[in-house]
Amino acid sequence: MPRINFHQQLAALKDKLLAMAALSQQALEFSIEAYVARDMALCDHVLEIEEAINSAETTVDDMAYDLLAKEQPMAIDLRFILSVIKINGDLERIGDQAAGIAERAQMLKDSPKFDLPPEIEAMGEKTGVMIRTALQSLLEADAKMADSVLLLDDEVDDMNRAVQAELVDVMQRDPECSIQALNAILISRNLERAADHATNIAEDVIFWLRGSDVRHKMSLAEAD
Amino acid sequence: MPRINFHQQLAALKDKLLAMAALSQQALEFSIEAYVARDMALCDHVLEIEEAINSAETTVDDMAYDLLAKEQPMAIDLRFILSVIKINGDLERIGDQAAGIAERAQMLKDSPKFDLPPEIEAMGEKTGVMIRTALQSLLEADAKMADSVLLLDDEVDDMNRAVQAELVDVMQRDPECSIQALNAILISRNLERAADHATNIAEDVIFWLRGSDVRHKMSLAEAD
Repeated sequence: MPRINFHQQLAALKDKLLAMAALSQQALEFSIEAYVARDMALCDHVLEIEEAINSAETTVDDMAYDLLAKEQPMAIDLRFILSVIKINGDLERIGDQAAGIAERAQMLKDSPKFDLPPEIEAMGEKTGVMIRTALQSLLEADAKMADSVLLLDDEVDDMNRAVQAELVDVMQRDPECSIQALNAILISRNLERAADHATNIAEDVIFWLRGSDVRHKMSLAEAD
Repeated sequence: MPRINFHQQLAALKDKLLAMAALSQQALEFSIEAYVARDMALCDHVLEIEEAINSAETTVDDMAYDLLAKEQPMAIDLRFILSVIKINGDLERIGDQAAGIAERAQMLKDSPKFDLPPEIEAMGEKTGVMIRTALQSLLEADAKMADSVLLLDDEVDDMNRAVQAELVDVMQRDPECSIQALNAILISRNLERAADHATNIAEDVIFWLRGSDVRHKMSLAEAD
């Protein structure tokens, strides 16, 4: 019964990817928390999680490669494995964004506190929702749920633009805050990129389930 | 002689990827040129090239998927196709960075000219060298050449940090230049990210040729 074994291996691949996904999501949430609270221990923890994500990425790629090499998966199984390879890259990059935020928080350790624009925390929450929903759509094999992630990406982009405009004003009014404002702008961009990766994950779930490539074809009207 | 046909298809896949790579490289070079010269026609051209890159990405993915589905590639051929899928994503993201730079140049159309730190042009050149070398290593199947790309990435990272520090000083000394300086910082980051993607491409070439995963394992000492 080699096919049963094959499906067990596919399930193991999915489990491993979801475990890695949990780490990526956690890293991003902790990084914002660490930045807001200037919590250096939490920064260190984010960087440890990022190491674990990097090694999980290699494991997932190896598992996917072995499945392709030893079995000859077809149609939906082949699409699943290809989607896993891509999602794996996106999860690793979400980890990179989290590490970027944690490193920025470390650099600011001794700078005076600076009130973040409230939109940044809201962006962090919305990005977290996008990642969680994309992963849930993978877990439940639900393409419609994946569609809903694509709609949120434009909202995060808009928030990012609003944050940037606000912080540029701060810089001009109060040059002493320039570094702090710049850091906040760059963190807003980290979040915007993490949201892009969540979008990529949702697109890969749609490719897996529907077999169609939504990238560069998506319009908001089509997403409904 | 199905195997001959298979190798023709692999060659066609490589040609298509290299044609797309040429577009990505061109888009990035033009985007810096457009930003420096505030050349709006060139900005438009970069955005057109980015559209072409996006559609090439879909074509390359479809070709790779068909090859995996119809043939059962093994060992080096399988690694080649998986590398193509990943390189394809990196090339598309280099196109995104170029588009980001062009859009930033468009926003600055009516702002007064501002002298870019000379390091930004140097970063653009070094990033261009990284992309070209990574692609050359793909074309010539030369893992040693791909190794050399990994060494350049740290240099671009250092340049990015130097540019950021310099521009933060500008912001504090001269708040009226804040927006311009911020734009230059963000462009420096676009270049740093494009260099990361060139690094990813070199790593995928090494994986294809040597079958080992260099990601997260690379140290400067090992690269020699």
